[in-house]
Amino acid sequence: MTSFEEVETEETITCLHMTFYHPCQEEKMMFRCLNFCRREQVRADEMAKFGRDSNVCHYNLMDSRVSRIQFSLQFYRKLNSSELGFEIKNMSKKTKLIVDHTELGYLNKIDLPWRCIICFGDYQILAEIQEGESLDYFQTRLHLAEVPVLQERCLPSLQPIPESSISYSLFPSQDKSPTETDENES
Amino acid sequence: MTSFEEVETEETITCLHMTFYHPCQEEKMMFRCLNFCRREQVRADEMAKFGRDSNVCHYNLMDSRVSRIQFSLQFYRKLNSSELGFEIKNMSKKTKLIVDHTELGYLNKIDLPWRCIICFGDYQILAEIQEGESLDYFQTRLHLAEVPVLQERCLPSLQPIPESSISYSLFPSQDKSPTETDENES
Repeated sequence: MTSFEEVETEETITCLHMTFYHPCQEEKMMFRCLNFCRREQVRADEMAKFGRDSNVCHYNLMDSRVSRIQFSLQFYRKLNSSELGFEIKNMSKKTKLIVDHTELGYLNKIDLPWRCIICFGDYQILAEIQEGESLDYFQTRLHLAEVPVLQERCLPSLQPIPESSISYSLFPSQDKSPTETDENES
Repeated sequence: MTSFEEVETEETITCLHMTFYHPCQEEKMMFRCLNFCRREQVRADEMAKFGRDSNVCHYNLMDSRVSRIQFSLQFYRKLNSSELGFEIKNMSKKTKLIVDHTELGYLNKIDLPWRCIICFGDYQILAEIQEGESLDYFQTRLHLAEVPVLQERCLPSLQPIPESSISYSLFPSQDKSPTETDENES
């Protein structure tokens, strides 16, 4: 019998929050295959792929202007550190991927900043990393913005945003114990 | 009718040469599922995975000491450059991956030097990148070493190596036109 006091402490899981916006999202419904309801768990050794081809991309964008694979995200552990992070890679030959102010061509990749805006074509995605400890999984949590996410960053004082569309950016910060996750050898 | 003179100039393809060595390779035959006969073509958007689980890894190592996925290689284009390269990532929780003098833990990753030695457990792999232009594919070419590859690097003057086992390291360098492949927008 294992009592509640005896079970192993549950690990926190890194969660990548992504808030999507497209100017035609209401008419064209390109986000209809995305799951905005709940967190999704992804194995640490898998790439999270976003694009038009549902055979390859778990995160499917229903838009003929989107590439088969538009971009991918890989989870990794920074060298000489216990810090976990994501790397984003542009997988589209036709469209540049802009991460804050960095323009990525086809097969270019970059570390995803803790909080950033990802753009391609008319798409805008606010990406925010919520830190966790687990080395086995990460989570994604998708949100839909009612207003452009670029606008939110550039004009915070001029454009008050309805509370419902900004609540995702105020995560409670999780406790993290770097020494415990420093090495995972057994 | 397209004559030989009119067809598009064939692109060179980046090729990663990997020379494998294990002290028990003759008895245990852990390399029996690797293809040492010819070059293999890999899509630029795919990861090359090496490990025990043949459902996940195209490069299959038949050894119970090898992890399900031991390491992976991704092909990418360096930022603000036309240079193509590989990144190696340790996917094993149990075994460190050593790339020249850098030790990678689980989920750590590093750029693969132009010529380097990759070690994990008793495995030694000499990796050498032969530059190419194609952004669609890369190639792998596997070789089997008769003597330890670490020894080859450390003691070149003391241990003359039979010609057959070093011929792979003398590639004819291919012509490369960086300006042509700088951007691939259409």
